[in-house]
Amino acid sequence: MHYGPQGCEEPDVVGVDSLRAAFDAETVSWIDVQGFGDRSVMREIGAMFDLHPLLLEDVVNVPQRPKTESYGDHLLIVVRMVSLDDETRIEMEQVSMILSKHYLITFQERYGDVLDPVRRRIRSGKGMIRKLGSDYLAYAIADTIIDGYYPALESIGDRLESLESEVIYNPSPEVLAELNAMKNQLINLRRAIWPQREAVNSLVRGDHAVISKDVGVYLRDTYDHCVQTSEVAEMYREMVTGLMNTYLSAIANRTNEVMKVLTIMASIFIPLTFMAGIYGMNFEHMPELHYRWAYPSLVIAMTVTAAGMLIYFYRKGWIGMRTRD
Amino acid sequence: MHYGPQGCEEPDVVGVDSLRAAFDAETVSWIDVQGFGDRSVMREIGAMFDLHPLLLEDVVNVPQRPKTESYGDHLLIVVRMVSLDDETRIEMEQVSMILSKHYLITFQERYGDVLDPVRRRIRSGKGMIRKLGSDYLAYAIADTIIDGYYPALESIGDRLESLESEVIYNPSPEVLAELNAMKNQLINLRRAIWPQREAVNSLVRGDHAVISKDVGVYLRDTYDHCVQTSEVAEMYREMVTGLMNTYLSAIANRTNEVMKVLTIMASIFIPLTFMAGIYGMNFEHMPELHYRWAYPSLVIAMTVTAAGMLIYFYRKGWIGMRTRD
Amino acid sequence: MHYGPQGCEEPDVVGVDSLRAAFDAETVSWIDVQGFGDRSVMREIGAMFDLHPLLLEDVVNVPQRPKTESYGDHLLIVVRMVSLDDETRIEMEQVSMILSKHYLITFQERYGDVLDPVRRRIRSGKGMIRKLGSDYLAYAIADTIIDGYYPALESIGDRLESLESEVIYNPSPEVLAELNAMKNQLINLRRAIWPQREAVNSLVRGDHAVISKDVGVYLRDTYDHCVQTSEVAEMYREMVTGLMNTYLSAIANRTNEVMKVLTIMASIFIPLTFMAGIYGMNFEHMPELHYRWAYPSLVIAMTVTAAGMLIYFYRKGWIGMRTRD
Amino acid sequence: MHYGPQGCEEPDVVGVDSLRAAFDAETVSWIDVQGFGDRSVMREIGAMFDLHPLLLEDVVNVPQRPKTESYGDHLLIVVRMVSLDDETRIEMEQVSMILSKHYLITFQERYGDVLDPVRRRIRSGKGMIRKLGSDYLAYAIADTIIDGYYPALESIGDRLESLESEVIYNPSPEVLAELNAMKNQLINLRRAIWPQREAVNSLVRGDHAVISKDVGVYLRDTYDHCVQTSEVAEMYREMVTGLMNTYLSAIANRTNEVMKVLTIMASIFIPLTFMAGIYGMNFEHMPELHYRWAYPSLVIAMTVTAAGMLIYFYRKGWIGMRTRD
Amino acid sequence: MHYGPQGCEEPDVVGVDSLRAAFDAETVSWIDVQGFGDRSVMREIGAMFDLHPLLLEDVVNVPQRPKTESYGDHLLIVVRMVSLDDETRIEMEQVSMILSKHYLITFQERYGDVLDPVRRRIRSGKGMIRKLGSDYLAYAIADTIIDGYYPALESIGDRLESLESEVIYNPSPEVLAELNAMKNQLINLRRAIWPQREAVNSLVRGDHAVISKDVGVYLRDTYDHCVQTSEVAEMYREMVTGLMNTYLSAIANRTNEVMKVLTIMASIFIPLTFMAGIYGMNFEHMPELHYRWAYPSLVIAMTVTAAGMLIYFYRKGWIGMRTRD
Repeated sequence: MHYGPQGCEEPDVVGVDSLRAAFDAETVSWIDVQGFGDRSVMREIGAMFDLHPLLLEDVVNVPQRPKTESYGDHLLIVVRMVSLDDETRIEMEQVSMILSKHYLITFQERYGDVLDPVRRRIRSGKGMIRKLGSDYLAYAIADTIIDGYYPALESIGDRLESLESEVIYNPSPEVLAELNAMKNQLINLRRAIWPQREAVNSLVRGDHAVISKDVGVYLRDTYDHCVQTSEVAEMYREMVTGLMNTYLSAIANRTNEVMKVLTIMASIFIPLTFMAGIYGMNFEHMPELHYRWAYPSLVIAMTVTAAGMLIYFYRKGWIGMRTRD
Repeated sequence: MHYGPQGCEEPDVVGVDSLRAAFDAETVSWIDVQGFGDRSVMREIGAMFDLHPLLLEDVVNVPQRPKTESYGDHLLIVVRMVSLDDETRIEMEQVSMILSKHYLITFQERYGDVLDPVRRRIRSGKGMIRKLGSDYLAYAIADTIIDGYYPALESIGDRLESLESEVIYNPSPEVLAELNAMKNQLINLRRAIWPQREAVNSLVRGDHAVISKDVGVYLRDTYDHCVQTSEVAEMYREMVTGLMNTYLSAIANRTNEVMKVLTIMASIFIPLTFMAGIYGMNFEHMPELHYRWAYPSLVIAMTVTAAGMLIYFYRKGWIGMRTRD
Repeated sequence: MHYGPQGCEEPDVVGVDSLRAAFDAETVSWIDVQGFGDRSVMREIGAMFDLHPLLLEDVVNVPQRPKTESYGDHLLIVVRMVSLDDETRIEMEQVSMILSKHYLITFQERYGDVLDPVRRRIRSGKGMIRKLGSDYLAYAIADTIIDGYYPALESIGDRLESLESEVIYNPSPEVLAELNAMKNQLINLRRAIWPQREAVNSLVRGDHAVISKDVGVYLRDTYDHCVQTSEVAEMYREMVTGLMNTYLSAIANRTNEVMKVLTIMASIFIPLTFMAGIYGMNFEHMPELHYRWAYPSLVIAMTVTAAGMLIYFYRKGWIGMRTRD
Repeated sequence: MHYGPQGCEEPDVVGVDSLRAAFDAETVSWIDVQGFGDRSVMREIGAMFDLHPLLLEDVVNVPQRPKTESYGDHLLIVVRMVSLDDETRIEMEQVSMILSKHYLITFQERYGDVLDPVRRRIRSGKGMIRKLGSDYLAYAIADTIIDGYYPALESIGDRLESLESEVIYNPSPEVLAELNAMKNQLINLRRAIWPQREAVNSLVRGDHAVISKDVGVYLRDTYDHCVQTSEVAEMYREMVTGLMNTYLSAIANRTNEVMKVLTIMASIFIPLTFMAGIYGMNFEHMPELHYRWAYPSLVIAMTVTAAGMLIYFYRKGWIGMRTRD
Repeated sequence: MHYGPQGCEEPDVVGVDSLRAAFDAETVSWIDVQGFGDRSVMREIGAMFDLHPLLLEDVVNVPQRPKTESYGDHLLIVVRMVSLDDETRIEMEQVSMILSKHYLITFQERYGDVLDPVRRRIRSGKGMIRKLGSDYLAYAIADTIIDGYYPALESIGDRLESLESEVIYNPSPEVLAELNAMKNQLINLRRAIWPQREAVNSLVRGDHAVISKDVGVYLRDTYDHCVQTSEVAEMYREMVTGLMNTYLSAIANRTNEVMKVLTIMASIFIPLTFMAGIYGMNFEHMPELHYRWAYPSLVIAMTVTAAGMLIYFYRKGWIGMRTRD
């Protein structure tokens, strides 16, 4: 996992001693350490490249905030890499880069990353990656990592869109739970993106001698991507918050609908039942019971009452509203 | 689509070679590329005018954030053009301008734009557009594009106004869905306007040598328009948010009304039905059943009960409230 | 409408030529143009005082954002004048001032304004207004316009106070509609006040040579008034937002009250009606029907049930709660 | 109410002439004017100490925003004094201080203030108050006034705490009204504190020559108190807003509880009443009516139905939920 | 509680005189004062080290805002220590540090702290703590105190996670009360963390001569931790606010569910009861009563009505919705 600018060698270094052997101060070397299995390896690398103990601590104690810190002739860049699990779950992993004139060391929490396109570009020798220094390599890695946020955001955007009509026309606790989960994901993403933006900006401003001016122009592009991702994340968060309020409104709407049905049914039949109840009484002296047309009259009275209620509700717009829109 | 300051020629250039032929370094040339059909054309234009590869990437990879970026003697200005479909749908399109002393290249995503007034001014030779340089042309284009936001905002404002009373007196899920759609549109508009504001401001501040001081005065006006559109958009967004809360209140209000009707109906007739139920029982020993005046007395008792309930509800303000306001 | 510092003349100029005649470079002249009836007048005034075309455009294209813009030896100050209709409606009108060493031109959208106190001070010759230059006149006009916001804000404050108890104890859709209207008014006011604040502040900071230091001290006072009005407007807006949430809470409260009445009525009488229904059945073999004390026993059972429910609801605090507070 | 640094005299000056007599340029004088009864007194004081007319206007036209304004060799400091009425009502009063090398004039709106501790310290001659100049006196007064905010905030904090459980377990419109009142009080307090913070900060930064460096150190402490009070006020405001939302949730919760009781009662007894209604019909041909075991069977069927409903509701967690937590 | 850089002595000083005896200007001394039992001790320490009276006041009058204040050759650092009670209650305590070249005095409100790891490092002599000066000691203490926030935040995070599903699927007033309590805790935490962040930042920026550059690098790390804790606290606060809104939505959802059950039950059985009521009337002339198939026909009609209602509710999605998701 280490390359030289003219040619390109990739010794698969395992121990620290073999690393020392493979290291060559003339070329640009990329040392990629995946997984923190063995602390002693860390310490040996630290000793070999003369790294500050605080720097090593920041590398190992994850999660750190994304940041750029200058330690004399080398620079610590901490970024957060996002990868998308197949189940739309968003995984985050810290990548720490130690950038010096002649080498770039990257530390990753776990095996597996999104950096294969960078490796391919180095191997193929196409583009400028082999011609420019370690700072361009750092840019290429940072840019690839930032670009990894787009698929994650897109997957959130897709789910948001599909939830929108669900929320209005079919709200359920599951939808609410999913909105909550999305909101927490977005809060997390924002926490990763914002300091990254600051870190990249400090690189662009040219505060650090290790970054050449040419690469600065490229980093400006990376900064733009940071800003864009942070804005999209912010926008989605606002939309999720909006949907949660919409959810509440939609539920209130449904309760209102349910209430209307209940009220209409109850308001029509309760008076009628009462009228039937009257003539179900067993008083000895109820003259109406013996009238010939009493029953048909009552039926007519009931029909009129029911129709009156229906007209009243129709006037209020509780019945037939649907067809009006 | 290219004009000279003294006269005005409009060769309809299709290939890049004919472009090279038509180009004349003495005059101000406006090269307008619509649609990105062919990437190789891009690369040839890039080579002809010696453009930075990152600049070309920004032009092609839409959507970029609106921004101003200096590349030595030329300037990249990215703005977003808004056009209004007949169905009140808002369409957005990226316009990238590359501004140099002697030429202005604009790249548009699709055919069709809002720039015909600018073209007309060039052709007619009226106003100052033919006397001033390419920077004034860039101003004229940017100003026309920004002015294109007003109709879009106005159409939103009109719909907002018509929704307002709808929300209070006739809330329905369709209204909620429309409010949601408007909110998302406004969030999108804001995302387009805000960085534009920054971009124009950086031009006004005179950070770039390509922009002359005279044109700076005009750009200050464009900046004012940016600020105004962003404020109007922000105001509408606040109003939409406010309407969504109003919607919830209005629904709650309606549910309250529905509940009142139900409660009044149920509270009046349920006790009466119970009273009728009592004397519908078949006990052998119910002396009241045999009393002569039992039935009329009961009817009177029922009337008194119903009247009592009505008075109680009237006192509570549940009946006849309407007339009180 | 034009005055000189020693004496005070008020020629009622109608045409532009008579204006040219009346103009006198030695004295301070206030030219007040009300209404934009004739565009050609505008152009002639512009030509006479050598004004930038953009400046004239800003004057005519209302509404502009309030702002201060320097054009060499003259200064454009755009403010918004508020006047209160008798029906508590707030009317806004743009006033543009062009301030130079020797003259001040004001453009108003419509006839009628709040500037009569300034005119009176000029005519009476009291105070410092005749002794100081055109910049003091500009201050006097701006201050009078800003002070015109106080009555508008006070009328809103009065309505807010009267709505407060209405919202809690008697919420209705009309109240909601009025709150909405007030909120939109306040958003509009804020949009007028905020940029005004910025504009006045830029005058106070002494960015412009036309404003003398003495008048700067007075403008500091105007700036204080701007800040105060903007704070009051902001405070009222917060209060309106708060009231809208209170409205929702109050409605929810009322629905709760309504529900309690319904639940109490239904819970007491539905079981009793069921009990009555049992003994209303016509089964041949129902021994209870023939017992001598069945009916009285049932009545007692019913009373006990009803009393039990009442005690249960009292324990829950649903009955007699009022008296507990 | 005027003291000298070596000794301490307190002539009770009433007229302006006697003030002139009592004034002594060698010592530090504190002139305390309470109440604005007589405008002519103001003008005479203004003339005596050569004060700017705008300054006098700011003193008289209450309420001004708290601020610090320099007028050459004297300084206007406007602060707002808070005092707590016994009924937890918060009273505000403007105190304007005019600070010069040799005197400090304070203007208060009304009689009565919180400054007695300062007077006592002057009289007793303990501490540094008699040794240091008029700027220390100004500090002492400002500090005492700022410290007067703590009891007001504490009283609000106490009421907030007592309202918290009230809101959750016993929400009523009175609670809502009180929350509203508290919120408005806090908005008012914040409006007083924030600009005070700015004013004190400008004194700390040493923008004004009248303030010596030694006193600056003390003012830093006052500034800290300003920040602390503003943070506490902000915190309380957030808590009040939170409680208002909690109120809404609590009401919704109660409505839910009420609905559950209604639904359980209605769902159990309405079907049973229906069953009883069936056999209350008078059809000639209803074989069930004549079966010997029909009645007991029906009673059993009813019991089973009721039990089924109860089990259903228990499963849904609507009954016995309380005990589950 | 005082140590020397070469060796390490820990005299358990009780009185101030013995402190004076134990103090040794050559070494770095850490004087740790726990509890403010005796004010006179304070005053004697103040006199011994020549401390400003305001500094001593800040130490004693708790709670102060966390801050850094320079008093010539010594520095006052006020931080707030967080410790976690076993019942997830968060306890706060003020720790004031007075840092000079040769000594560090810490004042704690109560006995007991989180500083044992620092003491152990001093005693063991491992690491750099004995080699570097009093500023490194101050860093070590501040860092240990800031790290003490993590467990407190983690315990809140754990409770938040466990509340999340509770809120959606089982909302109760107790959950609401707990959310409220957590919110207040988080507001308190934020109030402690934010000014701490500022205070540490001012140390990092190197405003103070007492802090050496080497220690500045370490403090940068502490600053990072401050930022991280403040971000986590902010994130949790947002999540709590979100959960409170979710709570409201969940309650509204449940009310909707309850209403549906009620409406379905009532809508099915109320019409049926009415139908039964009709034929329970005792009119003499009701031909239907004598038809042979009247009863079975009615039962069929009832079944059809009930089935119709069920189908209607099923179509509306009120029945069987669960299974659809």
